[in-house]
Amino acid sequence: MSPAAVSSPSSTSTGKIHGFAAKGKGQALEPWEYTPRPLGPHDIEIKIDHCGICGSDIHTIDSGWGPTSYPVIVGHEIIGRIVSKGDAVTDKQIGDLVGVGAQAFACHQSDCPNCSRGHDVHCPRSVFTYNQRYEDGELSQGGYAEAVRVDSTYAFKVPASLDPREAAPLMCAGTTVFTPLLHYKIKAGDRVGVVGIGGLGHLALQFARALGSKVTAFTSSEAKRAECQKLGAQHVVNINDPEQVKAAASSLDYLVVTNNSKNVDWNSLISYMDVYGQIILLAIPETELVLKPSSLLHRNIGISGSLIGGVQEVQQTLEFAAKHNVRPLIEEMPMHKVNEGIERVRSGKVRYRVVLSNPQ
Amino acid sequence: MSPAAVSSPSSTSTGKIHGFAAKGKGQALEPWEYTPRPLGPHDIEIKIDHCGICGSDIHTIDSGWGPTSYPVIVGHEIIGRIVSKGDAVTDKQIGDLVGVGAQAFACHQSDCPNCSRGHDVHCPRSVFTYNQRYEDGELSQGGYAEAVRVDSTYAFKVPASLDPREAAPLMCAGTTVFTPLLHYKIKAGDRVGVVGIGGLGHLALQFARALGSKVTAFTSSEAKRAECQKLGAQHVVNINDPEQVKAAASSLDYLVVTNNSKNVDWNSLISYMDVYGQIILLAIPETELVLKPSSLLHRNIGISGSLIGGVQEVQQTLEFAAKHNVRPLIEEMPMHKVNEGIERVRSGKVRYRVVLSNPQ
Repeated sequence: MSPAAVSSPSSTSTGKIHGFAAKGKGQALEPWEYTPRPLGPHDIEIKIDHCGICGSDIHTIDSGWGPTSYPVIVGHEIIGRIVSKGDAVTDKQIGDLVGVGAQAFACHQSDCPNCSRGHDVHCPRSVFTYNQRYEDGELSQGGYAEAVRVDSTYAFKVPASLDPREAAPLMCAGTTVFTPLLHYKIKAGDRVGVVGIGGLGHLALQFARALGSKVTAFTSSEAKRAECQKLGAQHVVNINDPEQVKAAASSLDYLVVTNNSKNVDWNSLISYMDVYGQIILLAIPETELVLKPSSLLHRNIGISGSLIGGVQEVQQTLEFAAKHNVRPLIEEMPMHKVNEGIERVRSGKVRYRVVLSNPQ
Repeated sequence: MSPAAVSSPSSTSTGKIHGFAAKGKGQALEPWEYTPRPLGPHDIEIKIDHCGICGSDIHTIDSGWGPTSYPVIVGHEIIGRIVSKGDAVTDKQIGDLVGVGAQAFACHQSDCPNCSRGHDVHCPRSVFTYNQRYEDGELSQGGYAEAVRVDSTYAFKVPASLDPREAAPLMCAGTTVFTPLLHYKIKAGDRVGVVGIGGLGHLALQFARALGSKVTAFTSSEAKRAECQKLGAQHVVNINDPEQVKAAASSLDYLVVTNNSKNVDWNSLISYMDVYGQIILLAIPETELVLKPSSLLHRNIGISGSLIGGVQEVQQTLEFAAKHNVRPLIEEMPMHKVNEGIERVRSGKVRYRVVLSNPQ
């Protein structure tokens, strides 16, 4: 690949990137093409092999978290090969298999209040992988497409031992659940619960178990009991059974909350916590969080949010998953069946992540 | 003092302990006497010199946190001298100057799930200093009185360098604010805010500053600005000034919330926090905590409660305050003027703690 490739508008034959876009709120995706931003010296272009379907994709299609800029190509669990790179990219080569998660850019300057502390997720100049505007005015577009351009810092080499299809959900779901486990230094013997056994939760069970913690799965689906156990849960609590809920009282040091249910029972979640227990919110329920302050105070309970993982955490996620055999359970579908894949997620039927694949 | 003193019903001349009790919800306190529990082998009796008036006392008088068992003698910032002790008490002597805080008993057994981890505050057998029932069926009675009996573990020797009157508010207010600063390992350079500059808050400013942190006071009273600065605040934010509130955005690593206001603006509190900021609730507002979960998630904010301090924390509070010149500002009043003292607190006029004193 000659340096001249850098200045070409795209590695695709037309100079445009083809993908599947939502053109309005809640609409089915349709084929669409866009002209990518010029490839900057630190950028790379990736020919996409696989992209997972994340809950965030659907919230964005639906303008569920505020108005979306349509047309939008969502998708931020991307795996593919580098096909172009800017002159300043020296640590990655054309042909490398890389993954991209929910973030496509941060400044990483020493005077950035957040990048300088390893909080690049919260960089004021951060650009998420889709539906955000770069400083040049262009919107970011995601991975339900044939290609994507991102800052090379946010393209992570995929360990050779990972199946690329399985690596895709690690890029967002995996790193989102592993990041707080790292932040809270969860260790052998800690009692960790996971509420919501879906795309994030089924990975949280595996990561927590691999860290040596005692894992409890909380599910409303009795049908998932055996699978939760296979994924690492030593205990499974059916949250529709008051006796099981009662027996789980004060049983946890940490509780990872991954579901977006409209009917989160915050008092039940608190009841599961032992003194000094920490509830970690990874999903954004559509209802408000309503609590009596005394319920936190009387037993020194904490609730915190955790967004996604930064550069360090994504790297650690991939390495840890590769080493400790943390693998998503996926349903692979061809990219052109994206609307069917979305429907699997919307209906809650997916076990546990849809991964869309382009023709190889 | 002969061992025979141990079996006497009380060191007081009548065998009864005289104090000032609330006999019904919200009522003015009246003189009242009660027969104390027999002095157990691990118990001591203290002749009370001083007792601070804590917000909890008033909530209890008012049945504000659930039904109170009347008559109740409140007061859990007690300083006095040991006048009787059980046979098993070997580490403290008759005549020792000691303080008692909000807790009078915990089991401290090695098989206790909480005592064994240093969480004696949360011992299932814990008895608070007033308005709680011992296992023998007797109610605990507090420090608006001439004497009190407690487990000797919860009577702490007062460092000689502390004025006994100033030591009183350290027993509850002091240890309540210092405990989370210890738990979160707050250190030099951390940015710590304090909301509610009253009995707890004016001590939180001093402790935080003594730990080397950068301290911001949040107050609705412009009149407190100079005093906040004297107490250690490098910055003072008037929460009624939208410009000052706006300028304080993202400025804190920790925020200690000590006020019981009925109009807590949770969104403002969150706005003050930098990414990964931690809000620490020390008071129990009478309103519910209502938040959008996204406000915690987008910037990795946490909210936790902290109740009081256990044995280790009370001891550390006294030692740290003595060493680093942390001193409450008090208004001393004679014990028989307790109702006037309570009125000072109810009206919000006290600067910053009323300490009741018995005749010496």
